[in-house]
Amino acid sequence: MTELESKVDKEIRKKAGNVLRETFLKLVEMVNNNEPPIMEIPKRTLSNTVYDEKRGLLILGKEKLKRNFLDLNEAKRFMQTTLMASIIYDALVNDEYPTIRDLYYRGKHSIILKDPNGRAYEENTWDEQKESDSVIVDIEVFTSLLREDMLILSKEKGKVVGDMRIRSGNDVIDLSKMGHGAYSIEPTPDLIDFMDINAEFVLVVEKDAVFQQLHRAGFWKQYKAILVTSAGQPDRATRRFVRRLNEELKLPVYILTDADPYGWYIYSVFKIGSISLSYESERLATPNARFLGVSMTDIFGDKGKKPYLSDQERRNYIIKAKDADVKRAMEIKNYEWFKTKGWQHEISVFLDKKSKLEIEAMASKGLRFLAFQYIPEKIKNSDFIN
Amino acid sequence: MTELESKVDKEIRKKAGNVLRETFLKLVEMVNNNEPPIMEIPKRTLSNTVYDEKRGLLILGKEKLKRNFLDLNEAKRFMQTTLMASIIYDALVNDEYPTIRDLYYRGKHSIILKDPNGRAYEENTWDEQKESDSVIVDIEVFTSLLREDMLILSKEKGKVVGDMRIRSGNDVIDLSKMGHGAYSIEPTPDLIDFMDINAEFVLVVEKDAVFQQLHRAGFWKQYKAILVTSAGQPDRATRRFVRRLNEELKLPVYILTDADPYGWYIYSVFKIGSISLSYESERLATPNARFLGVSMTDIFGDKGKKPYLSDQERRNYIIKAKDADVKRAMEIKNYEWFKTKGWQHEISVFLDKKSKLEIEAMASKGLRFLAFQYIPEKIKNSDFIN
Repeated sequence: MTELESKVDKEIRKKAGNVLRETFLKLVEMVNNNEPPIMEIPKRTLSNTVYDEKRGLLILGKEKLKRNFLDLNEAKRFMQTTLMASIIYDALVNDEYPTIRDLYYRGKHSIILKDPNGRAYEENTWDEQKESDSVIVDIEVFTSLLREDMLILSKEKGKVVGDMRIRSGNDVIDLSKMGHGAYSIEPTPDLIDFMDINAEFVLVVEKDAVFQQLHRAGFWKQYKAILVTSAGQPDRATRRFVRRLNEELKLPVYILTDADPYGWYIYSVFKIGSISLSYESERLATPNARFLGVSMTDIFGDKGKKPYLSDQERRNYIIKAKDADVKRAMEIKNYEWFKTKGWQHEISVFLDKKSKLEIEAMASKGLRFLAFQYIPEKIKNSDFIN
Repeated sequence: MTELESKVDKEIRKKAGNVLRETFLKLVEMVNNNEPPIMEIPKRTLSNTVYDEKRGLLILGKEKLKRNFLDLNEAKRFMQTTLMASIIYDALVNDEYPTIRDLYYRGKHSIILKDPNGRAYEENTWDEQKESDSVIVDIEVFTSLLREDMLILSKEKGKVVGDMRIRSGNDVIDLSKMGHGAYSIEPTPDLIDFMDINAEFVLVVEKDAVFQQLHRAGFWKQYKAILVTSAGQPDRATRRFVRRLNEELKLPVYILTDADPYGWYIYSVFKIGSISLSYESERLATPNARFLGVSMTDIFGDKGKKPYLSDQERRNYIIKAKDADVKRAMEIKNYEWFKTKGWQHEISVFLDKKSKLEIEAMASKGLRFLAFQYIPEKIKNSDFIN
C-alpha cells in the first residue's frame, strides 16, 4: 500500500505515532516506578467548558480528571482508552486509514476474566459505538491530537470552488477549473497546502442546491469569492477548511442560511462550535464568521433599510414559525456569543413576527437577484450580523 | 450573467426551450382551431409501470391520460402544468438555474376568481411543494425532457476519482489529480464529455467514509478502477453518471454496500430505479450493475466458498436483523428483478440467519484486507450477484 500513499500522509503518520507512543509510554514508566498508572485528562464537562470572550471561542477549562487503573470504577475505562490508543497506533504504523466506525469494530471483543474464586466470566470491551467514540475523544484531549491528525477518516460533505490553487496529497488542484462540478474537501484539511489565491472573501452557503446555482451562475468569478457549501450542518473538515481560509489567508467569511433558528444554529457551529465538543472548537471554529443572511430585516426591513421582499412576496414566501422554532430561538438568545446588539435585535424580530424564510424564496425572485444584487449589496453595505 | 455561463449550458437552454415551446404551442393551436386544449400524458400509475425483462428496466407502459382544460376536474391541474411550464421556459430564456424548491416558490401565489354570480374568491396555485413537484414530473413525461435537460439543478452527493479526463462546462478535469479530495459530480451529468479513460471497472461504494478509505489507500490506482460514492441512497446525477460510464465506456459496474436489505435496496435503485419513478429509469438505471457485496456467503461461506470471517469475527461483527429488515427482505424477494438464482439464494440465507453486516466490519479487518484482498478477489472470481 505504501507507494500508493501520499508523502504528507507518511509524515503525519510518523508524527502522530510518536506523540501517541510518548504519551502512553509514560504509563509504562509509572508501572516500572511502582506507581499506579494514571492518566490526567482535561474534563469535558459543561462546567469545564468556558466561553473565551476575547478569542470568541468555547474552550476547555483547567479542570482535569484522573483515570487510575487501580481504581475499580476507572479500570474499565482506563483499559478501553489504552486498547483504543493501541489500535490507533497500530493503524498508524500499518498505513491504515480507519474510521470511527471501524475502530469500534476493531476493538469490539469479549475478554474472559476470572474472579478471585477462579470463576470465569466474560466482559465486552464495548457494546455500542458511543462508548468507543467517547474513548477516541478522550485520546484526542489527552494527546492534543485531533482524530484527523491520526489519519482517522470520515465521510465528508463540504465542497469548494473559487480562484485558488491548493496542494492536496501529491496533486496540485485548481479550484477554478472544476467545470459544473466542485472540489470535495478531504477529511484531513490540515494537510492541504494553500498555494495561491485570487479572492476577496469566502461565502459559505448552507444549502448544496443553492451552492450549485451560485456556482453555475458564475457568482464566484464575478465577485472574487471562494464559494463553499456545508450541505447542511457542517462537518469537521468543512469547519476546519473555512477556519484556515479565514485565519491564514485573512479572508472574511460570510455565512448564508435560511432565516430561522436552525440557520442561526448552523452559523453558530461555524463560528463557535458545539458546546459539548468544545475541545475541538479551538481549531475548527471561525470566531469572526459573519451571518450574511437571510436576516429578519431583509424580510421586514428596518430603520433606514428597505426590505428585499414586497408585501405580496412576504405573503407567498413566509413560513409560520413552529413552537420548536420559538423555543430554540429563546435558547439561542441566551448564548453568550449571541448577546450582541445585532443578534438580540434579529432574535427579537423573529420572536415578534414568528416568521421564517427559506433562502430558496430569495432565489425564486431570480438567480440574478440573489447572486448579483442581494448577496453583493449586503456585503458592500456591511449588512451582516456579528 | 451570460458571459459567466458555460457554452454547453447555452446550447442546452436553446434546445430545451424549443422543445417546451413546441410542445405547449400545440395547446394554443387547439384553441385557435376551436378545439378544447388537451394534454396527453403517459400515465405514471403502478398499473402502467412495466418491468421490461429484456432491457432490465422499469418503464412506463402505453396508457395515457387526457388532461382537458374544459373538464372541471382537470382544469386546476391543467393550469398548474401550463403555469409551471411557463416558469421553466422563462428560467431557460433568462439564463436562470432554478431548483425544484424555488420553482415551487416562483409559482406560489393566489388567484382571484369570480364565480358566475360575481362573487370573488381566492384560489392558491399550489400549497405544498409535492404539488409543484408532481407537475414538474408531468412536464418531464409530457416533453420527454428530464429536469436536468431543462437546467433545473439540485443538491448533489456523488463523488468520483479515477484515471480519466472529463470536460465539464468550460474546463477539462483530470479525475486522477484530486489529491486526498474528490470530484463532486455536477447535477447535470449528461453535459459531461468523457475525454479519455484508463480504467477497467467502476466500483460504487455506498458509504462516503469507505470511499475516503479506499481512495486514500490508492485502491483505484492499483486496480484501474473508477471509484464512485453515492453517499447513501443515490441521487439522480450519480445514477446517470454511473449509467453513462457503463453504457458509453462499457465498464462493468460493481456496487458495494452493507449486507442488509437496505444495501440491496441501494443496489436496486442503481440497477432498476424506483417503482414510483419509472419514467426516469430509462435514462438513470444501470441494468447490468452487479452486487459485489457484502453478501451473505461472504459472511457464512457456501458450497466451495470459504467465508471471509472467522467464527470469532462473526460473533463480534454480526448485527441481528430487525423485524423491519425481515419484512423488507420478503418484499424484495418478490420483485421481478430479484428473481434470479443468485438473489433468491442470498435472500434465503438472510431470512434463515437473520444477520446483517456493515461494510465497516470488513474494513476493520484491515484496510489492506478490504482494498487489496476482499474486493479484487471477489471481482476476479466473479463472486457477485446479478
